[in-house]
Amino acid sequence: MAAQTDRSALSDHYDIVIVGAGPVGLMLSTCLARWGYKIKHIDNRAEPTPTGRADGIQPRSLDLLRNMGLKSAIMAHQPARVYEVAFWDPPKNGKGIVRTGTWASCPSFIDARYPFTTLLHQGLIERVFIADLKKNAVEVQRPWTITDFTSNEKEDSEYPVTVQIEHVDGTASETIKAKYLFGGEGGKSFVRDQLKIAVTHKDPIAHVWGVMDGVVNTDFPDIKMKCTIHSEHGSIMVIPREDNMVRLYIQIASSTDADWHPRKTATAEEVQASAKKILAPYTIEWERVEWFSVYPIGQGISDKYTLDHRVFLGGDACHTHSPKAGQGMNTAFLDAQNLAWKIHAVESGFARRSLLETYEPERKDVAETLLSFDNKYAKLFSQRPPPADTVAAASAGATAAAAAGQEENEFIKTFKESCAFTSGYGVFYKANALNWSAAHPAQSHVVHPASTKLVPGRLFMNADVTRVVDANTVHLEQEVPLNGAFRLFIFAGKPTVTAQALRDLAAGMTRKGSFYTAYTRPDIDSVSHHERHNPHSHFFTVCSIFVAKRSNIEISRDLPALLARYRGNVYADDRHAVSAHAKMGLDQERGAVVVVRPDGYTGIVVALAEGSATVDALNQYFGSFCTKELGGTQSQL
Amino acid sequence: MAAQTDRSALSDHYDIVIVGAGPVGLMLSTCLARWGYKIKHIDNRAEPTPTGRADGIQPRSLDLLRNMGLKSAIMAHQPARVYEVAFWDPPKNGKGIVRTGTWASCPSFIDARYPFTTLLHQGLIERVFIADLKKNAVEVQRPWTITDFTSNEKEDSEYPVTVQIEHVDGTASETIKAKYLFGGEGGKSFVRDQLKIAVTHKDPIAHVWGVMDGVVNTDFPDIKMKCTIHSEHGSIMVIPREDNMVRLYIQIASSTDADWHPRKTATAEEVQASAKKILAPYTIEWERVEWFSVYPIGQGISDKYTLDHRVFLGGDACHTHSPKAGQGMNTAFLDAQNLAWKIHAVESGFARRSLLETYEPERKDVAETLLSFDNKYAKLFSQRPPPADTVAAASAGATAAAAAGQEENEFIKTFKESCAFTSGYGVFYKANALNWSAAHPAQSHVVHPASTKLVPGRLFMNADVTRVVDANTVHLEQEVPLNGAFRLFIFAGKPTVTAQALRDLAAGMTRKGSFYTAYTRPDIDSVSHHERHNPHSHFFTVCSIFVAKRSNIEISRDLPALLARYRGNVYADDRHAVSAHAKMGLDQERGAVVVVRPDGYTGIVVALAEGSATVDALNQYFGSFCTKELGGTQSQL
Repeated sequence: MAAQTDRSALSDHYDIVIVGAGPVGLMLSTCLARWGYKIKHIDNRAEPTPTGRADGIQPRSLDLLRNMGLKSAIMAHQPARVYEVAFWDPPKNGKGIVRTGTWASCPSFIDARYPFTTLLHQGLIERVFIADLKKNAVEVQRPWTITDFTSNEKEDSEYPVTVQIEHVDGTASETIKAKYLFGGEGGKSFVRDQLKIAVTHKDPIAHVWGVMDGVVNTDFPDIKMKCTIHSEHGSIMVIPREDNMVRLYIQIASSTDADWHPRKTATAEEVQASAKKILAPYTIEWERVEWFSVYPIGQGISDKYTLDHRVFLGGDACHTHSPKAGQGMNTAFLDAQNLAWKIHAVESGFARRSLLETYEPERKDVAETLLSFDNKYAKLFSQRPPPADTVAAASAGATAAAAAGQEENEFIKTFKESCAFTSGYGVFYKANALNWSAAHPAQSHVVHPASTKLVPGRLFMNADVTRVVDANTVHLEQEVPLNGAFRLFIFAGKPTVTAQALRDLAAGMTRKGSFYTAYTRPDIDSVSHHERHNPHSHFFTVCSIFVAKRSNIEISRDLPALLARYRGNVYADDRHAVSAHAKMGLDQERGAVVVVRPDGYTGIVVALAEGSATVDALNQYFGSFCTKELGGTQSQL
Repeated sequence: MAAQTDRSALSDHYDIVIVGAGPVGLMLSTCLARWGYKIKHIDNRAEPTPTGRADGIQPRSLDLLRNMGLKSAIMAHQPARVYEVAFWDPPKNGKGIVRTGTWASCPSFIDARYPFTTLLHQGLIERVFIADLKKNAVEVQRPWTITDFTSNEKEDSEYPVTVQIEHVDGTASETIKAKYLFGGEGGKSFVRDQLKIAVTHKDPIAHVWGVMDGVVNTDFPDIKMKCTIHSEHGSIMVIPREDNMVRLYIQIASSTDADWHPRKTATAEEVQASAKKILAPYTIEWERVEWFSVYPIGQGISDKYTLDHRVFLGGDACHTHSPKAGQGMNTAFLDAQNLAWKIHAVESGFARRSLLETYEPERKDVAETLLSFDNKYAKLFSQRPPPADTVAAASAGATAAAAAGQEENEFIKTFKESCAFTSGYGVFYKANALNWSAAHPAQSHVVHPASTKLVPGRLFMNADVTRVVDANTVHLEQEVPLNGAFRLFIFAGKPTVTAQALRDLAAGMTRKGSFYTAYTRPDIDSVSHHERHNPHSHFFTVCSIFVAKRSNIEISRDLPALLARYRGNVYADDRHAVSAHAKMGLDQERGAVVVVRPDGYTGIVVALAEGSATVDALNQYFGSFCTKELGGTQSQL
């Protein structure tokens, strides 16, 4: 689907050069490879990560991996699943440590499909992506490194980036012309350094961390849980892993120490000796150490994620922080996903080039939140936890308390924010052309019905529905795969009530110059009737949801032909007493149209009205970032 | 774990020769390979099933595949999932067909984890097993066939079976000595024929069926559902399949026809022409026919499954019936699973050889039920369905009706039995040494507490619990893999109430000559502390479940050391308002011990009493089929 040009077949011309095959580079590569882009992907390591590094997949990231069809390959490795975090502290009287509390890591007030953190060695995760890339004939070129690049749109508007790469042993080199360059090389980014982009440290305090993966023999009862252990001998964090492994994080030095030095280190034996003291009276012995590393890390954010919207940065190249909250890989995934669909939208002629300008503010804002959260989180973990009943209130009763109008205390607030943020469900994007607000060009009486609980810039909500065509119970938010298309969820209320509104919507979508018709597939006449998600356009997938029993819905009767064409995406909102409509605050009789971005974040909510108001609003919404003027009047499809 | 003998290393000596690599042969082979047996597995086809044949995995079979760790490999092929069955009939007035009803294929009164039928090409399922066999270095030898065999325990008590096999082209042959021979060759079984075992036809009526797999273009709205369509032009059954395929079954002839001939046939074109007429006014066109076959089939059961308990039959070699209910592969799986663990129990020295005598009665009885059900089911499907409210009552309200003491009508009864049976949850085994009854040698006041809802010979119930060690929410019935071991579920009620009973149980289990101590692993002193399921014995895996909050359970405090050793198998019964204890009718304070056979069927329920009564009952139960005299008094472990 990459825009074809005369030069696209040249062997040294690529759509994108991706440097670094860690989580951020692989996610970007995988998305773009699926959408047909020509990719040069290099990494300076001879192999995928052999041991150590990141390992935490947060609940919302698992949703994303499932949406890409990669979850089962991840889970096949039988990762550890963390449902709870245990706190251990010195007893009030006496020596040693005692468990002072446990928290759900993703409490029930978060509407998560997978309320746990998945722990798996980064190398295994990388290999899942690499296997997927192979299906699209993309191979990571190893061990190769970038040595130079330039970007000049004036000289070459189509392939403005020139990249020099070479084998790490210097025996071979290549010069590549590309439309884009992506630096996903981690904290020590050559691309970032070349661009002279500085890293700003939010918190001036830096730390030296020791991390050890291994197999242990211990009588410590919570070795299969995530634990924060404070003792008079120091503190440690325990993270369970696949294959009976356990990861220990230990803080070796802090820049607040009198003798601080960022090169301060410790041997594996020293860390083990520390761990033994901290865990006493429990015993711990190592059967095997798989990986041990000591590294200094500060909190930093790259000042810019791009200078010219041709050379981009993402992942650890843009943000560094403590490993405690397990956010690194997850933030990297979302950086890449955000950039991938935007590059696709621009290069395929759907969105104006300015769409790329939303990458940095959206993702940098999340990184800023992550860093300020990282501080709070560290503080939360370094304190003795509050009494169990306060935690219980925070986990389960908080919503009840909130509903009752009671004020939440600071702990509960921080705890809830923490859980929402670490689970990934709390990530949100601020208002812009994609995320509707009162400042958006799309304004009319049908836009953003007052009752809706969906928030533009936040994730579309999870909902169970019944697929009409085969009576399967499905997760609505997973029904459209990560295919680069915007998702139009037509909540169609009661069929008898919305019949005319649906006809008007379909007529409006069919009109020449509508957002929908303006981006029709060039091959629309030869599309197979089996094509489920993109029969008319590569940029839209439509789902219709009725508040009715499945057996009472007749797709060809209840939907106009345009919408009925998506017969695999028609649903009965009949699974729960509280319907999906009601859960999202949408009118259960009259429905509403929800536009969800290709990455699953809500774009805009529009009432489903008779007449042209609904389509007019959608035309305005898409018109704010699409390449064509939208809102014509003639029928075309 | 196969019993080692002097001859086991000889290249022509095998534990078992398995003929046929369809579902029954592969299931048997996979189980025995995992448990360390030396297997010669042959199949007369050059490749696994390329197209067609069986395709339906029923809900309970999916549980079994999950228990073997094979479910995700099956689901990776994205099989079709049938949740409902639709009925189409001629309208009261006019021509064509109309939908007259839909039924849940596995209604909610069945406590199924996966309430749908999984449809996938048999060849893909076979390949999942073949991949697993490869991990244990077993390869199916193809295309090889059996040409002769003898079985004589008097001549050779250890390897009584001699098998001649040869390459189908006659270029090579082998003579093999084996402990067992298994005929899983399908309806035309050489092994069965050689043994001169007759097939008895329960229903004298035979049918000729046409079956066609293909990809179609149709406006028939229920093409993704299982459908039974009756029209004035004939009847057809529609089964959705993976990859946009659909299977059509059409009855071509019946022995009740005036012109009946079992060789009556039809071409693919004739079947397509029939289907077009039957589906009118809807249209259907074939884009591709993947497989087409016409075959005569009657209802038959092999008179014997074995003559000498050395040469066994299973799968289609033992039972043939209409393909309508999708039971063939599922019954084959259970034949094989039943035989596999019994061979293992005998060959590893745990059970007396007479245990093998339970294979035929248990599985033949199920086949008889299947055949009589097949008739009822066919009748149910050939009738116009009753009004929707009757079906609704049957699906959802039936239990309510039953609870209210109202009599269920014939339709509801048949429907419920059908659903239970086709889902696989209705399969049960009659009383014998394994399945306790009032006639069993194990008799005392603690045996089979009156309140229990568990029925010996029926499946252990599904239950959600929280694993203590890592706070994971798990399915209790899946916690012990298919490892050939009996599962001791110690429902331990309230820790404060059962403390003494648990100590007494552990002491009794530890005593010399107890069922548990009598079968200790010979390598018990060198077993890794990571060994989760079989630290003490290959024949027992222990799980303990407390009615308590997870955070209040301390494994080392609440369980005696013997039971605490299974720290990965300790659970909090805290997931639902109705606890697992209550669901199974077990005392929520005082608990009970449930023995589950290696194949997941309940063996015996014993109250958890202080003193020795509980262990005494367990010794009596196992003593009824184990090799050693059980019930000694000295401590050993």
